[in-house]
Amino acid sequence: MASGDEKRRLTILGSTGSIGTSTLDVIERLGGRKNFEIAALTGNGNIPLLAEQARRLGAELAVTADAERYGELKESLSGSGIAVAAGRSGLIEAAERDAGWVMAAIVGNAGLAPTLAAARRGAAIALANKECLVSAGSLFLEAVHKGGARLLPVDSEHNAIFQVLENEQRHAVERIILTASGGPFRTKSLEEMRHVTADIARAHPNWSMGLKISIDSASMFNKALEMIEARHLFGLRPDQIEVIVHPQSVIHSMVGYSDGSVLAQLGCPDMRTAIGYALSYPKRSALPVERLDFAKLARLDFEAPDEIRFPALRLARRAMEAGGVQGAVLNGAKETALEAFIKARIGFLAMAEIVEEVMDALADLPAAATMDDVFAADEKARHTAAGLIE
Amino acid sequence: MASGDEKRRLTILGSTGSIGTSTLDVIERLGGRKNFEIAALTGNGNIPLLAEQARRLGAELAVTADAERYGELKESLSGSGIAVAAGRSGLIEAAERDAGWVMAAIVGNAGLAPTLAAARRGAAIALANKECLVSAGSLFLEAVHKGGARLLPVDSEHNAIFQVLENEQRHAVERIILTASGGPFRTKSLEEMRHVTADIARAHPNWSMGLKISIDSASMFNKALEMIEARHLFGLRPDQIEVIVHPQSVIHSMVGYSDGSVLAQLGCPDMRTAIGYALSYPKRSALPVERLDFAKLARLDFEAPDEIRFPALRLARRAMEAGGVQGAVLNGAKETALEAFIKARIGFLAMAEIVEEVMDALADLPAAATMDDVFAADEKARHTAAGLIE
Repeated sequence: MASGDEKRRLTILGSTGSIGTSTLDVIERLGGRKNFEIAALTGNGNIPLLAEQARRLGAELAVTADAERYGELKESLSGSGIAVAAGRSGLIEAAERDAGWVMAAIVGNAGLAPTLAAARRGAAIALANKECLVSAGSLFLEAVHKGGARLLPVDSEHNAIFQVLENEQRHAVERIILTASGGPFRTKSLEEMRHVTADIARAHPNWSMGLKISIDSASMFNKALEMIEARHLFGLRPDQIEVIVHPQSVIHSMVGYSDGSVLAQLGCPDMRTAIGYALSYPKRSALPVERLDFAKLARLDFEAPDEIRFPALRLARRAMEAGGVQGAVLNGAKETALEAFIKARIGFLAMAEIVEEVMDALADLPAAATMDDVFAADEKARHTAAGLIE
Repeated sequence: MASGDEKRRLTILGSTGSIGTSTLDVIERLGGRKNFEIAALTGNGNIPLLAEQARRLGAELAVTADAERYGELKESLSGSGIAVAAGRSGLIEAAERDAGWVMAAIVGNAGLAPTLAAARRGAAIALANKECLVSAGSLFLEAVHKGGARLLPVDSEHNAIFQVLENEQRHAVERIILTASGGPFRTKSLEEMRHVTADIARAHPNWSMGLKISIDSASMFNKALEMIEARHLFGLRPDQIEVIVHPQSVIHSMVGYSDGSVLAQLGCPDMRTAIGYALSYPKRSALPVERLDFAKLARLDFEAPDEIRFPALRLARRAMEAGGVQGAVLNGAKETALEAFIKARIGFLAMAEIVEEVMDALADLPAAATMDDVFAADEKARHTAAGLIE
């Protein structure tokens, strides 16, 4: 951040996770407390890390999502002058605090309510949580719009599109092209995929990520969620969203315009570029991430995604075309199937089969009028999936 | 062009050449006379084509650069109401006519004076001529600045950079990466290159272009000129300009930022995208050019350029670092050597040898204070090169 700029007042929802710790790393590299004032940090079970982060950055408030760990966090921060809260209400308190910037990095449905609270009060939201758009879609966007909030996508794909989307030329956007590494099973046959375990599925070729998102990459459900996310984020029709398999993950995504130009953002696979972009927006800040060396790269490959082996993409299209709560249904069913796969209760291919059956069963659910309808659809999807797994 | 917009009043300098005819094609596709008002067209020896273009587009003035063809052009346009002029003064008259937009597509030094005239009166200039920046560099930019003109690059590489250069983030630009197809001799040895003829050298793998520019691509002198051009156009240090060989010519060029992001413009090799971009700027207009299909492309390759086999790149760096009139010297010597190669008077590799010797001989020429100094340097370079060829 250029010196002389005002300090950015920031709350990090989910500071102890993968995106959260990368965010702290970026903040240090952008000048730390000299340039950032931390209103609140929230974490879940890793109290020592959360307390250490809060002290290091001089946060005003630290929150654990786990209400039972309140005492532990309170004790860890005694004498620091840092306020402490816990549980669902604590997360909302953190999100509602008067920080102009919010990093929304809580994974899963738990991130929905606090991110929504930040949206309602008009924060600039660096959005790393997928569920806000996948499950709550238009309701979430409505809150963003009403609150005067701004969404700055942190997913590398959406961040790439955001970087090359010309806002004054929205009429000229023909398509966006989400790149997908293809995951560890890109070249595996259906028969081979049938027998893989969670340990094999988690080995992502390019990005270092958590267990769940690694398996979602292997099944391409991660890309399916990103398609739905992109649709809402950029206000596109489902048929304007393409996916191309690009094993090297160097082109992070692209936008195709009506004059034949395709604009792309490229980079080494390092989340800190997208995080730094969102936290510095509308400026760009220098980051010591690795630079691309095209001679060393030597080549970039592309192939059409195979929707037979990776039905998640087909299901994403179906959810986008159906609209309503079908994003929440897909996501809820996927979460339940994913947990069952991790516990070795179902096979790898059964995940998509279960999601599809749940979507069949819940195809007639009405569109959501309130956030509670979204949670209800998610709950129904999880319940239906659980029944199928039994 | 969106309906309801004002008509663009345009002069095309060099309407009968390769860029000129593509420009007319783009104009037709953007609504023709409904959206464009043609102030003037200029050509050289192809009078029938020039006259036909002038009638078709309802130009107010048609100019042949060849003073001896005035009568022929006058006769071809008799009864049309289209004014006619010829020679150097005719070109200046065309450039000075009150058109808000000028396509500067006259090839070579002949394009300098008319483009300068358009710059001085503050036109928006779609710049396809290389010499304005390569030879006249800072003098030309000074005229652009003083006149309040605007440069919109039409070379596919510079147009690509222009598309992804964030003007508010100029401080964050680390480097630009010009892509080069590598031409027909990318994989040839020095020994093989020694014996090639102009007919072999003109066979460009991706772009369909004129004879001279095709040979310049084979020797990479075209890329050398583009490096010098880019340096002036984007106000960069020589060390911020990289070249990467990319045989498919799909990525047209890139900009690297300080946060690790690299932004790129991609497209099928079709000049009409860059021309349409410049003529529609700041909007984008729909063009029926072929769209990129990444699955069909399958791969993009990159390799470091070889400055042993392609010394032009090394000479470009030398000219940039030396500054002054060394761009004009390089270009003048190159033109003379190129003509000698086309006439089979010297071999392919001798072109760069001659340019280097001329640069050695004229290294002490002072910087240009006026455009006449530029022309004098060019003339000296041509003369010295001719002497070496003898």
